[in-house]
Amino acid sequence: MKFAHLADLHIGKRLYEYSLVENQKDILNKIVELVKVNCVDGVVISGDIYDKSVPPVDAVKIMDDFLSALSSLEIFIIIIGGNHDSVARLSFASKILEKNNVYISPVFSGNVEKIEMTDNFGRINFYLLPYIRPVNVRRAYEDFEGETFTEALKFVMDKINPDTSIRNVLVSHQFVTGAQKSDSEEIYVGGSENVAYTLFDDFDYVALGHLHMPQAVGRETVRYAGTPLKYSFSEISHKKSMTIVDIREKGKVEIEVIPLIPAQDLVELKGSLKELINESVVASVECNSFVKITLTDEVLKNDALDVLKQFYPYIVSIGYDNSMTRQNNVVQSRAVSEEQRPEEIVEELFVQQNNRQMNDVERGLTEKLVKKVWEREYETD
Amino acid sequence: MKFAHLADLHIGKRLYEYSLVENQKDILNKIVELVKVNCVDGVVISGDIYDKSVPPVDAVKIMDDFLSALSSLEIFIIIIGGNHDSVARLSFASKILEKNNVYISPVFSGNVEKIEMTDNFGRINFYLLPYIRPVNVRRAYEDFEGETFTEALKFVMDKINPDTSIRNVLVSHQFVTGAQKSDSEEIYVGGSENVAYTLFDDFDYVALGHLHMPQAVGRETVRYAGTPLKYSFSEISHKKSMTIVDIREKGKVEIEVIPLIPAQDLVELKGSLKELINESVVASVECNSFVKITLTDEVLKNDALDVLKQFYPYIVSIGYDNSMTRQNNVVQSRAVSEEQRPEEIVEELFVQQNNRQMNDVERGLTEKLVKKVWEREYETD
Repeated sequence: MKFAHLADLHIGKRLYEYSLVENQKDILNKIVELVKVNCVDGVVISGDIYDKSVPPVDAVKIMDDFLSALSSLEIFIIIIGGNHDSVARLSFASKILEKNNVYISPVFSGNVEKIEMTDNFGRINFYLLPYIRPVNVRRAYEDFEGETFTEALKFVMDKINPDTSIRNVLVSHQFVTGAQKSDSEEIYVGGSENVAYTLFDDFDYVALGHLHMPQAVGRETVRYAGTPLKYSFSEISHKKSMTIVDIREKGKVEIEVIPLIPAQDLVELKGSLKELINESVVASVECNSFVKITLTDEVLKNDALDVLKQFYPYIVSIGYDNSMTRQNNVVQSRAVSEEQRPEEIVEELFVQQNNRQMNDVERGLTEKLVKKVWEREYETD
Repeated sequence: MKFAHLADLHIGKRLYEYSLVENQKDILNKIVELVKVNCVDGVVISGDIYDKSVPPVDAVKIMDDFLSALSSLEIFIIIIGGNHDSVARLSFASKILEKNNVYISPVFSGNVEKIEMTDNFGRINFYLLPYIRPVNVRRAYEDFEGETFTEALKFVMDKINPDTSIRNVLVSHQFVTGAQKSDSEEIYVGGSENVAYTLFDDFDYVALGHLHMPQAVGRETVRYAGTPLKYSFSEISHKKSMTIVDIREKGKVEIEVIPLIPAQDLVELKGSLKELINESVVASVECNSFVKITLTDEVLKNDALDVLKQFYPYIVSIGYDNSMTRQNNVVQSRAVSEEQRPEEIVEELFVQQNNRQMNDVERGLTEKLVKKVWEREYETD
C-alpha cells in the first residue's frame, strides 16, 4: 500500500498583503503530477485543508479542482479536518463521495472512522481522527473527566483497539510532544496541547498534520507531512515536501520524502540600502521571491521602499535595525506563552490596566468566560 | 422518465425569531419518503438550496443528510444554484459526485450543462441553468450587450439549441412573467427581472425555482415547484407541494402535485384579547402553529402577550388594529417598488434628506456606485 501523505494545505492563506492563490494552485498541480508519477494507491491529507473554517470561494474552487484531479487518477483519497477546518462543511456529501473512494472524516462524535482496505500484503486499516480537544471528548463521552489533550487522545485511542496482527494507519491532526513548531501554527492557548507519540504505538504509520515543518516524531513512522508551501518567515529554512509512504508486509514501512518546489520562495535580506541594491545581491535572489527586508542604515531613507521595489517586486515587510531601533526597544505587546492558561493571560492584562490583582469574584467571572468561549468554539462546529 | 421537482428549500431560513431547523428536517424526511413511495427515477431541485450564500453549519448538515438519503435510493439528483446560493460552494466535489448521478450545476461560465439520459421512451436531455443576471452573461460573452433579464436569458437560451426531436427538460431559477409573487422572495431591485415563458418553448418541461408558490406559468409544463414550507405570512394560503413529473413519449407529460404537510403551520388571528382566548378559537388552531396576532382592543393591555402565550406558544408577531393605530398611520419606511431603478430610489431618499434634487455630479456618482455594487455582488460568486 503506497500513499502520498500531505497536510496543512491552508488553502486561502495569505502572506501579509499577498494572496497565495496562484502559488497554491501551482503547488497543488505539482502535487497531482508527483502523485501520478509515483504510482501511489492513494493520498492522505491530515487536516487544515483550508485556512479558515468558512473558506473564501476562491479557496473552495482550488480545493474542488485539486480533489477532482486526484480523484480522476482512480486512487483513494482520505481527508480529516484540522483545527482550521469546519469539519461539518468539509465533510458535505461525504457519504456519497465514499463510493468513489473519497473518505472525509465526519464531525467527531466519539467514534474514529475505520476504512478497511486490502492489498497484496493483506489487510490494512486506516483510522480517521479529526482534530480533537478535550471538550470534544467530554461531549462524546460522559465518563471522560480528563482535562488535557493527552488524556483526551489517550481516551479515544483506547477505544480504537486496532487489530495489531494486520497493518494499521492512523490519520490525526494534533501537536505531538517533541515536534518542532513554527510561528505559523495556531496552537491552543493555555498550553499542554501536546500529546505523547507513544499513544500511537499500535500503528504502523501515523500520518500527522498540524505542525508546518515536515518531520518524524519519536520514530520514523510517526510523521508530520508539513505544509506544501512556506506560510511564514519562521518557515524560511523548511524544506517542504510530500511524503511517500510504502507499507509492505507488516513491520516494513518505506518512507520517501519528495521536495516540493514553490513558484515563489521566501527570502530574508539584511543590510544597508546600498548593499541590498548591489548587483550581486540582487542577482542572488530569484526576482519573484517574497522578500522581508531589514535595513541597517543609521539614517532612515524615505524613499527606501520605492528604491527597493524596483529590485524586489514582492516585498512583504521592511524594517530597520540600527542603533536607534535597538535603544528604543519598547515592547508594545507580548507573545502569548503556551505555558499560561487563558485566565492567567487575562489577569495579567487586568493588573496592567488596574494596578491591582483581581479579587475572587473577578477571577470567577474570568474563568466562567474563558470556559464559555472554548465551549462555544466547539459549538460552531 | 419520472422525477420529483422541488425548489427553494432555503435551508437555514428562520421565521422571525424562530429557527426552522426542525421543521426543515421534518419536511425533507417526508420528501424522502414521498420520493421513495412514488418510485421516481430522480429528483430535480431548482435552486435556493440554502437561504444564505454562506449557510450556517446546521443547514449544511441538513442538506448533507437529505442528499445522502436521496442518493441512497439509487436515483439521479439534479441541483442548480439560485440567487441565494453561492454556486461555487454548492458545487464542491461536483465532478466526483457526477459518478454517483448527483449533478450540481457549476458556476455559470456561458455554457449550460447538459445531462443526457435514456429510458424506455428514448433519449431525454436535462439542461442545468443556475440563476443568472445580465451581468453574468456580459462576463461570459463579450458580444452580449443586453441590459434586461429577458435579453440575457434569451441570449443564453439561443446557445442551447436543443434537439427537439427528443425530450428536453430545462432546470432554471428565474422570475417568469405572469407568475405570482409572495413577499418572501428576494427580487432584483430595479425591476424588469421577469422573463417571458415563451423563451422555453423548445422544452417539454421547465423545472423552475425562485417563486415560493407552486404554480404553472403560461402552460402546464412550465412550473414552479414552490418552497416545501411556508416561509412568510404572505404564503399563508399556499398549498405547498412536491411536483411529480412523468415524461413519457415525446409530447406526453403527466403532472401530479403531492401536498406537503408541515410539522407546524402558519396561522393569522385577529380579534380582541377576549375573543382570541375563547375556547372555541383556541381549539380551532393547532397548538404548535406559528401565530401572527392582530389585537383589536381599543385599550392596549400590557400583559396581552403573556396571556396569549399561554394559549399560543409560538407567537411570531403581535400588533394592534384599532382606532388609534388607524389614525396614526405614519409611513416610517416604504416598500421598494420593483418598477424603480436603484438610482431612483437613492435619489428619492436624497430629496427627502436634502430638500433639493440631485445635481448631475451627484447623479453620476450614484449611478457609478449602484453599478459597482451590482458588479461586486457578481464577483462574490
